[in-house]
Amino acid sequence: MIRLSADDLQRICLGALAYHKVRPDVAAHVAAGLVQASLRGVDSHGVRLLPHYLRAVKAGRLNPNPTYRFEHTSAGCGRLDGDHTFGHAAGAEGMSHAIELARQAGVGAVAVRNSSHFGAAAYFALMAAEQEMIGFSFTHGDSLILSAGGRRPFFGANTICFAAPCKDEEPLCVDMATSLVTWNKILQFREQGKSVPAGWGTDEQGNDTQDAERIAALHSMGGYKGFALSMMVEVLCSLLTGMSFGRRIVRMYADPLEKKRNLGHFFMAIRIDSFIPLEEFKARIHGMMHEVRAEPPKDPSIPVQVPGDPEKRTKAERSELGIPLSAAELQALQNLDR
Amino acid sequence: MIRLSADDLQRICLGALAYHKVRPDVAAHVAAGLVQASLRGVDSHGVRLLPHYLRAVKAGRLNPNPTYRFEHTSAGCGRLDGDHTFGHAAGAEGMSHAIELARQAGVGAVAVRNSSHFGAAAYFALMAAEQEMIGFSFTHGDSLILSAGGRRPFFGANTICFAAPCKDEEPLCVDMATSLVTWNKILQFREQGKSVPAGWGTDEQGNDTQDAERIAALHSMGGYKGFALSMMVEVLCSLLTGMSFGRRIVRMYADPLEKKRNLGHFFMAIRIDSFIPLEEFKARIHGMMHEVRAEPPKDPSIPVQVPGDPEKRTKAERSELGIPLSAAELQALQNLDR
Repeated sequence: MIRLSADDLQRICLGALAYHKVRPDVAAHVAAGLVQASLRGVDSHGVRLLPHYLRAVKAGRLNPNPTYRFEHTSAGCGRLDGDHTFGHAAGAEGMSHAIELARQAGVGAVAVRNSSHFGAAAYFALMAAEQEMIGFSFTHGDSLILSAGGRRPFFGANTICFAAPCKDEEPLCVDMATSLVTWNKILQFREQGKSVPAGWGTDEQGNDTQDAERIAALHSMGGYKGFALSMMVEVLCSLLTGMSFGRRIVRMYADPLEKKRNLGHFFMAIRIDSFIPLEEFKARIHGMMHEVRAEPPKDPSIPVQVPGDPEKRTKAERSELGIPLSAAELQALQNLDR
Repeated sequence: MIRLSADDLQRICLGALAYHKVRPDVAAHVAAGLVQASLRGVDSHGVRLLPHYLRAVKAGRLNPNPTYRFEHTSAGCGRLDGDHTFGHAAGAEGMSHAIELARQAGVGAVAVRNSSHFGAAAYFALMAAEQEMIGFSFTHGDSLILSAGGRRPFFGANTICFAAPCKDEEPLCVDMATSLVTWNKILQFREQGKSVPAGWGTDEQGNDTQDAERIAALHSMGGYKGFALSMMVEVLCSLLTGMSFGRRIVRMYADPLEKKRNLGHFFMAIRIDSFIPLEEFKARIHGMMHEVRAEPPKDPSIPVQVPGDPEKRTKAERSELGIPLSAAELQALQNLDR
């Protein structure tokens, strides 16, 4: 295992993106989004995805030089056409507009269409929190979670992300798929040739299985409740954007890389001082997080955590020690600029 | 068991509310909210709550004659002081403002403070859907769900509700507590002297128990994910409103009825035509619901349902046959106007 600093990793990513003629403003968001995810320990959405994305540029799925079209449709709302570029860049463009709208109207909502996989949803919600606003980011994705009462997946493990600024520490960030576990976890068990715990997923017929190789659908979190939240996200990301839904969505890996994904995202930014003085909010959220962490733990050796604490801890550790990569991962990244 | 029509039940509720000098505009929302919940089969939040509420009026917790104070703070945002009236009425006032704001700004967000228990969250989100908008309603409540990794509850089973209008049928409505099951379910098992299924709740020490009498905390839906969503709702409802959070919240039943609850809610309304033509949205959401219902079911005799389908079915049935009440429940309601 090798450890690279975030700066070095960002340089490698930017070099590879430049080699593939990805426009600098687009490349900046892709590199920043991937490295932020790796730094926070969200490796499933980190730099390991870059080789896949660059193959998608070569094949024509991803547009390295997009022409964004933004329409400001009402004081607080707008629509963005991402022109099939990286979701990281289209998403950041969308959230930037939502933040601008919120500056004027108190709340801003932007629906992004003709986008692609945007990596970790936290990247966008945290953009709002860095501007002292509450941020929401939503995306749909590949059909993946078992429908409640069904035998196969319809909706994706659609993502809900929420961030809010906090006094004296990084923002509170809730970032979750609506599946119980991520597909990446299943892939890890496959690689290790291990069985997965009961209740994670089902086979092609919708029957529970612990055989990682046979898992074809993931259970949603909290049963029908996760399924319902996934449908809510699909309404925001597919129907408000005019994009496809359910099994019609072009799959990230299983469909040809020539096919554009036509994904949709939905972003909201909310000005806190429309409701309460900002400093009061930031002090109280800090107090809330502190109180939760001081709750009596089930296991005396493991303190109660608030959402995002594991990511904050990993970020602190990796900022100091570097981001770990296997030799194969590093080589894959270094081979991208040729 | 007796069955009463929704109209008769509404008349009984309005009579009791008038007897307790609840102002007609406030009473109208309380009666409509309670009867709608009963009609949709959400009996835990239906007319059975009226005796409790009227005791709270007598004791001074609930203000039957509130002076609302609304501040329009930015194009899309506002704050409402509910003056300690019924949450049904303060909530409806808040959502009405959110809808008005959305009419102008495309999206409207309203934080309501100094409110109380608002019944079923669907009542408010559906108000937006009836105006052809997407509606979100959120509330916090009594500290009730086990903290992830903790031994006792901190946050409530805080509610998330989403509604959207649909062609040729009633709106899609997702309405859920962030606990795996509701506290009311536990109470039902207590009344029947039965053990609850494994995984529903824990005792005072945070240990799993199936003894309904000993359950002191509910498990969140999807483990730490439900806990995280509950915290998100608490931020919206406690911190944007300036209300209390966690265990400081005055409990619905366990605290004296003289104590005001000081609850907060958060509402959003979103104009669909800010993003996509309304009729296109309504046709596509109808198509989506139809496709989901046509998915192959796990049990061939039980079709796949979309969120809200059980409530729609119950509403159709109870609209025809009446709302079932036990003799004791009916008597309790009839004894309220004396």
